[in-house]
Amino acid sequence: MKLYLAVRSKALLCAVMVCLLAPVAVAQAIDPLPSWKDGAAKQAILNFVRSTTDNSSPNFVPPGERVVTFDQDGTTWVEQPMYTEFIFSFDRVKELAPQHPEWKTKQPFAAVLAGDQAAIAKFTNEDLEAVMVATHAGMTVEQFQKTAKDWLAAARDQRWHRPYTELVYEPMLELMRYLRASGYKTYIVTGGGQAFVRVYAEQVYDIPPDQVIGTAMAIEYGYNKAGEAVLTRAPKLLLYDNFAGKAEDIYLFTGQHAKAAFGNSTGDQQMLEYTQAGGGAPLMMLVLHDDAQREYAYGPAQGLPNSNVGTFTQALYDEAKARGWIVISMKNDWKRIFAWEK
Amino acid sequence: MKLYLAVRSKALLCAVMVCLLAPVAVAQAIDPLPSWKDGAAKQAILNFVRSTTDNSSPNFVPPGERVVTFDQDGTTWVEQPMYTEFIFSFDRVKELAPQHPEWKTKQPFAAVLAGDQAAIAKFTNEDLEAVMVATHAGMTVEQFQKTAKDWLAAARDQRWHRPYTELVYEPMLELMRYLRASGYKTYIVTGGGQAFVRVYAEQVYDIPPDQVIGTAMAIEYGYNKAGEAVLTRAPKLLLYDNFAGKAEDIYLFTGQHAKAAFGNSTGDQQMLEYTQAGGGAPLMMLVLHDDAQREYAYGPAQGLPNSNVGTFTQALYDEAKARGWIVISMKNDWKRIFAWEK
Repeated sequence: MKLYLAVRSKALLCAVMVCLLAPVAVAQAIDPLPSWKDGAAKQAILNFVRSTTDNSSPNFVPPGERVVTFDQDGTTWVEQPMYTEFIFSFDRVKELAPQHPEWKTKQPFAAVLAGDQAAIAKFTNEDLEAVMVATHAGMTVEQFQKTAKDWLAAARDQRWHRPYTELVYEPMLELMRYLRASGYKTYIVTGGGQAFVRVYAEQVYDIPPDQVIGTAMAIEYGYNKAGEAVLTRAPKLLLYDNFAGKAEDIYLFTGQHAKAAFGNSTGDQQMLEYTQAGGGAPLMMLVLHDDAQREYAYGPAQGLPNSNVGTFTQALYDEAKARGWIVISMKNDWKRIFAWEK
Repeated sequence: MKLYLAVRSKALLCAVMVCLLAPVAVAQAIDPLPSWKDGAAKQAILNFVRSTTDNSSPNFVPPGERVVTFDQDGTTWVEQPMYTEFIFSFDRVKELAPQHPEWKTKQPFAAVLAGDQAAIAKFTNEDLEAVMVATHAGMTVEQFQKTAKDWLAAARDQRWHRPYTELVYEPMLELMRYLRASGYKTYIVTGGGQAFVRVYAEQVYDIPPDQVIGTAMAIEYGYNKAGEAVLTRAPKLLLYDNFAGKAEDIYLFTGQHAKAAFGNSTGDQQMLEYTQAGGGAPLMMLVLHDDAQREYAYGPAQGLPNSNVGTFTQALYDEAKARGWIVISMKNDWKRIFAWEK
């Protein structure tokens, strides 16, 4: 049992040991971030927790207002060479193809079925939306949940041949645990599908479903033959949780500014800006993928290769510097990236 | 300090006393529902908590899935003769009138300004929407919050001459505390405005803003002159949290079925149905306002007077009986209604 265990709302935690140890004292006694190298990024985190949880600090944050938000793709797990949920969707297209013979000649489905990576790389938002609607709507919420769960259990990534849920960044898991141990509620705020991420968020991040905010399809109420209530996923977007949508949805779900926000791409810009606008001594951090050897290197900020997945522009990098946000270098700030690394 | 205090996520609660007492044992030793008369309603609550928190029970609910939902208007506080938020909106129309000289002759504003109760009673949904947009949109989220807070501090109801936040039902507050002490997360799920209820939910119900689900205006992201992020309330409905919307929004916010649901009107029907569809041994309850002397009497179920506010139809009453939901009689099940009663 880690000493900096979080007191979670879902448990009556009665360990006297935890009761006797204040979180800050624990943080000083035991390094809460062992996968982080000593440096500006790690120091910024330690300073943030110290200044917001010490009630003699001018930046003290009352426990009820301790909310922090994490982007997922590229911030807490691998997003290259393609978002995991898209890979799931493309696999679903292949599975559903026998029921849709017209897909063989109809784009964007034909490209997916042919495995035409060049065509897939050029998919427009409309193409992706067509794939998402075909694979994410027209079923009950339970059916979708089961489909995603089964796929996650069986699927392996092409580079490390591991379940996608093992491609999470150990330093970010440590950060989440450390923040929870300091009284913070940790939220995932993802451009990906809320329902998809909820399938594994508890197991992977120790984050319950009500703390997962994401892109959401409209849900429609109805009844089954037995007269019981059933919720069906409608082919219509309710929340697009990306860019400005992240800030708007954080307000919708939490009613307040986050005190810290972690992202890695242009889709996270407004989430970080909104966190900063809340005043106090907030913490805004962006992960820069500059480690092709251990993970991936892409930007195009700082001369890194361009990428349509998880784009980190030079403009975002410049804004980070101008606003005092911390850029995390995967290469220089993280001792290890995955829990299973040697 | 009440012995059945909840361990809240927002606090590191280290009182050894609480640690030493299991909630069920406390419930048996001390009546957790002193304002409830002994009877079927109280017994149903006690049975529900016992069967879902005893881990040898077939209906045991793991702590992470302990979610319960409360309607607000007419379920946790008074909704007659008119929803409190409408009274707030009408007062706002009066305050804003000098900036809108055209309102003197333009409906529905003219009726509000003239205090024409007969006309107000006949307002269509479009009329009410016009009033809501005029009073709830076009300002930052902080401006709305301050306006509502100031109004709530000053306003008094016409019958008891008390702040509206004192018109909460003591038996329901006891029920919320008891459920939280039993590991349940308590949510407000209101047809009223989420932003309005969040202003006082923590103080009145001990419910934090992220556990308030309600009707929500769209929020728009932008910047102030200093380049800081600002959220503005747009004149557009994002979530209509009533009827089927309640079930849909509970899924959106929590990702799961509630294990118990409490309502009082047709707008709560789907919330209760959806709770029941989750299986196990859920608890569904409806408050029937049958006490004109201590509060109000309206239905039209069971021959009570009809009401456009918080309508409880005979069809809903019959559905409750058919599905095994518990109808709470304010007159017969509650020893006292308000904390300030003699």
